[in-house]
Amino acid sequence: MKIPSNVSPSVFAAALREFAGVVGKDWVLTYDEDLKTYRDAYSPLRETPKDRGASAAVAPASVEEVQAVVRIANRHRIPLYTISTGKNLGYGGSAPNHDGSVVLDLKRMNRIIEVNESNHYAIVEPGVSYFDLYRYIQERGLKVWLDVTDTGWGSVLGNAIDHGVGHTVSRFRNHFDSHCGMEVVLANGELVRTGMGAMPNSKTWGQFKMGMGPMLDGIFSQSNFGIVTKMGIWLMPQPEAFMHATVYAPRYDDLHGLVETLKYVENSGLAQGAPEMGSPLLATGGSTMQLVDVFYDGPPKLSKRHMELIAGTKIGYSPEIQSYGLDNGIPYWSLNLTFYGPKKVIAAQWEAVQEIASRAMKGAKFHSDPIYTDAQKAAAELKIYPQNVGVPNLDFFAMGTRAGGNPHPMRGHMWFSPIIPQSADGILEANRVFDEATRTVAALKNIPIWNLKPFSLPAPFFERSFLFVLGFPIADDPAMNKAAVEAYRALLDIGGKHGWGEYRAHPEFQDQAMGLYSYNNNSLLRLNETIKDAIDPNGILSPGRYGIWPKHLRKKK
Amino acid sequence: MKIPSNVSPSVFAAALREFAGVVGKDWVLTYDEDLKTYRDAYSPLRETPKDRGASAAVAPASVEEVQAVVRIANRHRIPLYTISTGKNLGYGGSAPNHDGSVVLDLKRMNRIIEVNESNHYAIVEPGVSYFDLYRYIQERGLKVWLDVTDTGWGSVLGNAIDHGVGHTVSRFRNHFDSHCGMEVVLANGELVRTGMGAMPNSKTWGQFKMGMGPMLDGIFSQSNFGIVTKMGIWLMPQPEAFMHATVYAPRYDDLHGLVETLKYVENSGLAQGAPEMGSPLLATGGSTMQLVDVFYDGPPKLSKRHMELIAGTKIGYSPEIQSYGLDNGIPYWSLNLTFYGPKKVIAAQWEAVQEIASRAMKGAKFHSDPIYTDAQKAAAELKIYPQNVGVPNLDFFAMGTRAGGNPHPMRGHMWFSPIIPQSADGILEANRVFDEATRTVAALKNIPIWNLKPFSLPAPFFERSFLFVLGFPIADDPAMNKAAVEAYRALLDIGGKHGWGEYRAHPEFQDQAMGLYSYNNNSLLRLNETIKDAIDPNGILSPGRYGIWPKHLRKKK
Repeated sequence: MKIPSNVSPSVFAAALREFAGVVGKDWVLTYDEDLKTYRDAYSPLRETPKDRGASAAVAPASVEEVQAVVRIANRHRIPLYTISTGKNLGYGGSAPNHDGSVVLDLKRMNRIIEVNESNHYAIVEPGVSYFDLYRYIQERGLKVWLDVTDTGWGSVLGNAIDHGVGHTVSRFRNHFDSHCGMEVVLANGELVRTGMGAMPNSKTWGQFKMGMGPMLDGIFSQSNFGIVTKMGIWLMPQPEAFMHATVYAPRYDDLHGLVETLKYVENSGLAQGAPEMGSPLLATGGSTMQLVDVFYDGPPKLSKRHMELIAGTKIGYSPEIQSYGLDNGIPYWSLNLTFYGPKKVIAAQWEAVQEIASRAMKGAKFHSDPIYTDAQKAAAELKIYPQNVGVPNLDFFAMGTRAGGNPHPMRGHMWFSPIIPQSADGILEANRVFDEATRTVAALKNIPIWNLKPFSLPAPFFERSFLFVLGFPIADDPAMNKAAVEAYRALLDIGGKHGWGEYRAHPEFQDQAMGLYSYNNNSLLRLNETIKDAIDPNGILSPGRYGIWPKHLRKKK
Repeated sequence: MKIPSNVSPSVFAAALREFAGVVGKDWVLTYDEDLKTYRDAYSPLRETPKDRGASAAVAPASVEEVQAVVRIANRHRIPLYTISTGKNLGYGGSAPNHDGSVVLDLKRMNRIIEVNESNHYAIVEPGVSYFDLYRYIQERGLKVWLDVTDTGWGSVLGNAIDHGVGHTVSRFRNHFDSHCGMEVVLANGELVRTGMGAMPNSKTWGQFKMGMGPMLDGIFSQSNFGIVTKMGIWLMPQPEAFMHATVYAPRYDDLHGLVETLKYVENSGLAQGAPEMGSPLLATGGSTMQLVDVFYDGPPKLSKRHMELIAGTKIGYSPEIQSYGLDNGIPYWSLNLTFYGPKKVIAAQWEAVQEIASRAMKGAKFHSDPIYTDAQKAAAELKIYPQNVGVPNLDFFAMGTRAGGNPHPMRGHMWFSPIIPQSADGILEANRVFDEATRTVAALKNIPIWNLKPFSLPAPFFERSFLFVLGFPIADDPAMNKAAVEAYRALLDIGGKHGWGEYRAHPEFQDQAMGLYSYNNNSLLRLNETIKDAIDPNGILSPGRYGIWPKHLRKKK
């Protein structure tokens, strides 16, 4: 049995007894078989002594229990690592940054406080999953849509405060941005509400984000400054109809026109869903939908000549493959767009998009699927990613573990996902730099990174930003995992040199990834540490989360 | 000459000499005639001993000078009150919360760092006004629109961090929400950049809001935790066309259908501009556009009978006036909508809106103005508020001081603007409660409050929220101003009891207004104070701003 560093066995035992006094002894877990479920199932350190784990887990059922547990932990200096619900696969699972922390598991706090159909918002506890909220809405026939992330078992609240994303309309895809109001337990056990929740009797907690005075919500995201126990989230009014359509462009240089089209149509609201780029000619895409195509239909079947041409491209290009594409009518690029609204508005928007794209790219071609008024039917018949119509599922989870073509069977994955400039030049430069890394970084030679070659297109989940996502497999082979970690660390630094920083990372890499946000000799980190020391002086809340360590552990880094 | 409390005359003189050493002696202002420009021109305490003022003003020209000034102030414990540019009329002008503070005037920092036409953002310093940025864009023919606030001389950065609003598309009207990235000078002189600005070499400071780790930006809005010296702001791609249209509804009870229509069309993006409600039958509106109509065309000319009927309504209703409206074809309610985009998309959206409104309200009628492709021409010919097409001006400033009908000539104004629930019931309840206040609050009897009677409709600047705005005149008569302050204080408390809190307030009322956000025995205020003490231990930055006082002044409240 692990125990936290800086805590004696007797104090730890006393704390566990006190926790049991609050939550009941069934909800203080200390047996190895229980604690295994809090390990990182996709850990790159699996089966090594460095793999982090919990010393115990405590699962309170209410805010009052959370407060009581935190007060006990604060008194005994027990580090707590807070999780909501879901699996957090690829981002560290439920394993704490600081080995031996007690996992504070909020899965039992799964109340849906309110779904307001007329004002289009919900207020939820951390244990509410996308499945839970979706089911609640469906059962009552409420005319609101939920923007759902890749895995339906994820926590609506947890995903938002870890800066997660979804797949519908821009306004809702950035889950933190579409949150509205929080309730937070501080390290001293105090309960704080932000926004209009700070006003007793207010009925606008889910309506007005800002309240009055400083907006503190942001400091409780990707951090360890408090425990968020309730959160409002804006929902989308159920649209009358949905359409999926694709813009195609014939030539390599059209990447510029394609990106300009993407930015204009997204930033002016002409196409609302996540605009996903792909390359039919290079048989690749950064896009989830194309991944799903592979999942449903298998990899695309290409001629031998075509595959040879792809293998011969450099940064996705050769004159030969461009000619091959032009001769055979295979577009170089594609841009999947989704539209939400009344049928006639969708039709007019798609017409406008076609005009804009035609001005930006000579020879642009277009395909549109039928307009659906039934979301479930659209998802089933179009074989699109169900998240595009707000339906939670686990397809992506299935893909992540079984997607074909790997020389080593995958046992998990982790994502390398820096923000790069939203431009064609940004995409080309990122491909060039990381392609070069495959020759200069020794560890990379052994890693079947997904999906740098022949060309990687960004995942445009965030409006106005490009995420350049590379997937690292986790294997049964510890040597391969070690190489993956080394390669990941090398890519982090290479990205950092170019000004490309992660939006989120596995705990194993959080210190390094945050360390790259180093402007003015790490002044942001120092400010984070100043705030941490002030509001959690004993450093009990999720030590190390996103590179923020309490004073007594800071030197250990 | 005032000097700050807790500072000796000799220390103050030494600090001023050191400030002059940094910014040059021409930019350290201490003469009364100079300091008069930093008074609150619309102060409700004018010509009274309680009226707050500056002891001096310092105007640095660069971030380095700001850092140097702050370090000097921190060493000598000199309170600084930071302002950007513009007038801040109605919200306290440039006068500090804490009497005798040195105004840190950032108007000379007026560089436009970048306007990115392709990625639709700008990065500006605090001294850049809406006029400045608009002129910059126009001179270069850049195809981006700026969402402008009521007065064009205002600071783009200052307005955003004080939670100001504008008049175009939802995504851009909330200026804090559409900011992206900050540079901040802390009380110790340290320079911090948030978002991707924290990464050296990053080119995505204006593209990706979140960076990595805790999002600190919010704590620098409506606060005194730091001095924001640069900020990114998202711009709107220039739309192909613009249309202004109005939905009319015949009956009092249609207010419910009108609000439901407003919420659906706004939250689903079918009409993008600020949806402004009015009442042609009651000859009133909460709406800026209707105010501007009055400004341009004078008050509406009504029959004697109609005016008597209006005077006889209760919470905006009587059976007689409803019959009068129905008989004479005068709608009870109106909803102004604005549309931005390609002509055919606007036409389709307006068709959809009419269908939705017709389902919600029997007998709804519709008017649409021509669709314009030239914004300037639209503003001129339609006599609409130029802010609706992104053109900064000073019309509202002119109105605020001269709008007709006041028994007392106005010398200024201040706004009472709580957030109320976004529903017809919310509007009716707010009218009922505040109408009752005109009978129960003695001070209110003498104040010609604008615009409670016969009925007040909210200003829907913020998406998903209603601002219930009442205007208090400032007069030459100190007794009337005293009554206005008393009345305002009474309304604050009445609002607070109903859960309606201000989104922003004049410094005279900030302690009281913030005090209403008192959930859990003021836990939010305590958290704000904990952060304040940690990052500004000497309490030199804008003491008292939004109710947050440094330790040594906390008891004085």
